[in-house]
Amino acid sequence: MDYTSEEREQRRSAADGKGEESTCRSPGNVILRKPYLLFLGEETNPLKAKTAFGLRDWAAESCIGQTRMPGGTIDLGLPEFDPATAAAAGVRSLVIGVTPPGGRIPPHWSRMLVAAAEAGLDIVSGLHTPLESVPGLVRATAGTGARLVDVRRPPDNLPRATGKRRSGKRVAMVGTDCALGKKYTALALARAMRGHGVDADFRATGQTGIMIAGAGIAVDAVVADFIAGAAECISPAAAADHWDVIEGQGSLFHPAYAGVTLGLLHGSQPDALVLCHDPERTHVVSWPDYPLPGLQEARDLYLRMARMTNPDARLAGVSLNTAALDEAAAQEALARAERELGVPAFDPLRTPLDRAIDAILG
Amino acid sequence: MDYTSEEREQRRSAADGKGEESTCRSPGNVILRKPYLLFLGEETNPLKAKTAFGLRDWAAESCIGQTRMPGGTIDLGLPEFDPATAAAAGVRSLVIGVTPPGGRIPPHWSRMLVAAAEAGLDIVSGLHTPLESVPGLVRATAGTGARLVDVRRPPDNLPRATGKRRSGKRVAMVGTDCALGKKYTALALARAMRGHGVDADFRATGQTGIMIAGAGIAVDAVVADFIAGAAECISPAAAADHWDVIEGQGSLFHPAYAGVTLGLLHGSQPDALVLCHDPERTHVVSWPDYPLPGLQEARDLYLRMARMTNPDARLAGVSLNTAALDEAAAQEALARAERELGVPAFDPLRTPLDRAIDAILG
Repeated sequence: MDYTSEEREQRRSAADGKGEESTCRSPGNVILRKPYLLFLGEETNPLKAKTAFGLRDWAAESCIGQTRMPGGTIDLGLPEFDPATAAAAGVRSLVIGVTPPGGRIPPHWSRMLVAAAEAGLDIVSGLHTPLESVPGLVRATAGTGARLVDVRRPPDNLPRATGKRRSGKRVAMVGTDCALGKKYTALALARAMRGHGVDADFRATGQTGIMIAGAGIAVDAVVADFIAGAAECISPAAAADHWDVIEGQGSLFHPAYAGVTLGLLHGSQPDALVLCHDPERTHVVSWPDYPLPGLQEARDLYLRMARMTNPDARLAGVSLNTAALDEAAAQEALARAERELGVPAFDPLRTPLDRAIDAILG
Repeated sequence: MDYTSEEREQRRSAADGKGEESTCRSPGNVILRKPYLLFLGEETNPLKAKTAFGLRDWAAESCIGQTRMPGGTIDLGLPEFDPATAAAAGVRSLVIGVTPPGGRIPPHWSRMLVAAAEAGLDIVSGLHTPLESVPGLVRATAGTGARLVDVRRPPDNLPRATGKRRSGKRVAMVGTDCALGKKYTALALARAMRGHGVDADFRATGQTGIMIAGAGIAVDAVVADFIAGAAECISPAAAADHWDVIEGQGSLFHPAYAGVTLGLLHGSQPDALVLCHDPERTHVVSWPDYPLPGLQEARDLYLRMARMTNPDARLAGVSLNTAALDEAAAQEALARAERELGVPAFDPLRTPLDRAIDAILG
């Protein structure tokens, strides 16, 4: 993640060669160093701090402190640390947990980021601004071993997919659309499976998920030829009874992103699928000409495509985002989905996951 | 194509922002300058000069001369020019038409490439070595306006797909596998359609195709989020009776590249599909665990996926690569495919295309 531009170009060029071999050394090759200090800028709007709240909720044991700029009002309920104090307390990375206007790092953040790097903290960002372009930041890492980690930048040495079956079990989140709870469902299932004594890992395919898991690849940022290869890296061979719970991306029914979804599905080779859906949504978000499919239609197409790389793929559950519904309407929607698909329906924010986990484990 | 590394990074970062707008200024944004001088290195093996032969065969009017290094024996039957003479004769670009070992530019080619750039010729390459890394080459372009064009590098300002229907007609090549004649079929159909008075253009999605057409995007090198967006750029809105004949990539049945194929299909929004197949092939090339689908299975899946962005998509023909068959066996394979699919079957190297063109035009 901290290559020079020239090295990156060389590695990208090398990876471009379909005939050349490359291998995955680890799930995603991007391993973040925990624990984290969460940087909240001068943010005042909680909606712009979703990354920070997600980290606090899903990687609580890795979040040791928070740090703000003057004017910032977001409070995660964590101790306030300056970077040097955080480093002394064992923090390894400062993670940018807010999204400023334009998704870019404002110039006045440089001093704080430089101070953190000088204190030896890795800087972890999912924003558009490449960290190495922040004035003074590269120099600040020189003596300390701190790394600059842009989590949306994929590793440069991705292999093409092999298509070969690998050991371990996998459950993939798939959806009728983007942004309807696939990441949340995967996180909740992985946590609940571990609570049931299952050896399970959440596997991240997007930037917030990567920060939570501490590893992963932003598959939508990968060069197209390597989507399925990236998915194979994200979920490597494992013990026979180990489960990877794989975050989904996009939707096979999305006119812009279905290619990402299909490559991720093929490389994941899931044994089980969980179909994620929002019962109130009628069309693809921001693409009003594209109606969402029915649940059975979605199930049939996902299974059709998944079975190409894993003939035993089956649907194990349906996750509904019922946030907009009252309790009675939510229960009715869940009952309807369960009748329609014949698998447990759940809302990870609202209902127990036990039956879904039983269905996943088969 | 001739941005600095820093500009490229900025543009890539900007394009990463799903919410940020970007537009296509032209089909692929990469417009090569014709006519060409074909550079053949010291190659002696015609199999390593497929690009040069493809250009001579499919862009004959754009190929004015050839140039070789000492020891080279490939002969395209074109006049020998040194770069300066070629420039004086009106040549605009030197195109590397051979593939040296490793797909990389050997150091001893630098002098010839530098001389061409100094003579004002663009340098066009599909090899892995970035042209700007060839010693002296960037400097050689300084005074002459020559450009360094790596055709496998996609433009950096690709938009995400809109999914909106656009004017003009499109026929897309799709296949049961990679490398079985999709580009050749598209080139032959486009030429024959023009011969029938149809306003038709070949649209390139891979590097050799781009050199032939003089424009296009290598879709397998695009960042995954922008595959369908790139396809929309490759085949922009056109006159109502204009046909784009779109080169295919990969296969929906390919365990590594199906995501590329799906994104290209969605963005192409084809009115008609031509299914390309090799009747002697039993499994995906280099992936022996993956048997090829039957023709009807392939048709059904391609139509299912194509109709998401164009509900009127239909199968118009089947192109068989019968190179390994004698005449009787080829005719039998064509008759069988035609019975199976109910559309004209042809081999662009062997049979007339008239019936297929009638079927495409509807």
